[in-house]
Amino acid sequence: MPHKLYAMTKPLILVTNDDGITAPGLRALIRFMKEIGDVVVVAPDSPQSGMGHAITIDNTLYIKKSQRDLENGIEQEYSCSGTPADCVKLGLQELLDRKPDLCVSGINHGSNSSINVIYSGTMSAAIEAGIEGIPAIGFSLCDYSWDANFDLAKESIQKIVQEALQNGIPKGVVLNVNIPKTTSEAPKGIRICRQARANWKEKFDKRTNPTGKEYYWLTGEFELLDKGEDTDEFALSQGYISVVPTQFDLTAHHAIQLINNWNLND
Amino acid sequence: MPHKLYAMTKPLILVTNDDGITAPGLRALIRFMKEIGDVVVVAPDSPQSGMGHAITIDNTLYIKKSQRDLENGIEQEYSCSGTPADCVKLGLQELLDRKPDLCVSGINHGSNSSINVIYSGTMSAAIEAGIEGIPAIGFSLCDYSWDANFDLAKESIQKIVQEALQNGIPKGVVLNVNIPKTTSEAPKGIRICRQARANWKEKFDKRTNPTGKEYYWLTGEFELLDKGEDTDEFALSQGYISVVPTQFDLTAHHAIQLINNWNLND
Repeated sequence: MPHKLYAMTKPLILVTNDDGITAPGLRALIRFMKEIGDVVVVAPDSPQSGMGHAITIDNTLYIKKSQRDLENGIEQEYSCSGTPADCVKLGLQELLDRKPDLCVSGINHGSNSSINVIYSGTMSAAIEAGIEGIPAIGFSLCDYSWDANFDLAKESIQKIVQEALQNGIPKGVVLNVNIPKTTSEAPKGIRICRQARANWKEKFDKRTNPTGKEYYWLTGEFELLDKGEDTDEFALSQGYISVVPTQFDLTAHHAIQLINNWNLND
Repeated sequence: MPHKLYAMTKPLILVTNDDGITAPGLRALIRFMKEIGDVVVVAPDSPQSGMGHAITIDNTLYIKKSQRDLENGIEQEYSCSGTPADCVKLGLQELLDRKPDLCVSGINHGSNSSINVIYSGTMSAAIEAGIEGIPAIGFSLCDYSWDANFDLAKESIQKIVQEALQNGIPKGVVLNVNIPKTTSEAPKGIRICRQARANWKEKFDKRTNPTGKEYYWLTGEFELLDKGEDTDEFALSQGYISVVPTQFDLTAHHAIQLINNWNLND
């Protein structure tokens, strides 16, 4: 029974990601969180990048439980056949014996800044926790390499988590944290930002398979459409960590009055 | 060549959905749109409900082309092995010969009101089009039945589309339209709303498979947390169609100043 694993004086932290339970970014985040609280891991058993806020509604979910004896205590891990959002739902509803104090997702291998937040499995897990009323943070390193150096960001990540635990995160808000790619130095600092306007200029690479059937690969180039200096992209370009408070009330309140003037009810 | 299919005087409408190309809700939407403009369909070849804003980045995409000779002209259809967001990307980048004047997604078999917008493949297609600068609307009928009566909403759907074509939709905004379930009467009217605060109280149905392995089914009950009379849920409960202007800039601007007071940079 997991009840005895948690000392009530330490915060309980649910750790998840979208790159899957073996990803080095997840292992780094577990290490960083173990120095702050009790950790339970619920993560996908295979990579789920680009899954957005997908959930598994027409298929079964499997869970595999394991326990790791780390230098600073036992850690409980569950790998799950579902999406990042499934992992959080399962964790909160079935696997944890009490409500966690925080949910952290990541560290993603690759950026989730600006419009990428929409496609992000990492952030979908954080948002799912936020919907359920748990303070939540998604962490991403702007480096797709499996061998990326996560330790340079350790101090900043722990600082953000400590502040979130101490101050709380406003209801309806989750944090989207992106960390610039650095090779040998820690990021210059942390900036609170807005999401930059950007999109992907898609290209589809059209090929022919061995049986003569045509197929496509999605590729694309990131297109920044925003010159603001208060954006996540600007902070990252200057070597700073970006923190974007992110919401899941998608109402465009400014547009309500405008559309009220349409001729819809006569 | 599709070039000759479009008369330039008629608007070009890209139609997609998440229930798949054979869904009655899609067929109804095609019929309604054919009376307004030229229609090109790019829809998933299988159901994609609950896919959120997933995209296919580590797998191939296949497309199957067909042409239908409808009573009011030829219609071009593409079914795609990917997600709703993939369909829109492929449609805009590879399959259409010019930028469509509008993208409509649906009619979904089931509600995408309040927090459901986050999990919605229907809305992810509309949002993808919005990101690419195309006016876009997602339509959902609050009736999961495959035999639902879509025709009762025909007049309202066409009115919303005509007004969108005439007035344009503000940049960065897409419309989330939900239609109440009615058995014999048309909806009472159309209301512009905000997204209601709500979540799902998940339950996992735990079972054992024939080989003795445990698995789960995700189930849940919808929990409305919002008593506001300006919400989509309230409008629907009163028999009205709800229109929520929805944005993909997820920045919680009100939280930026608050989090700026955290002790992050010393």
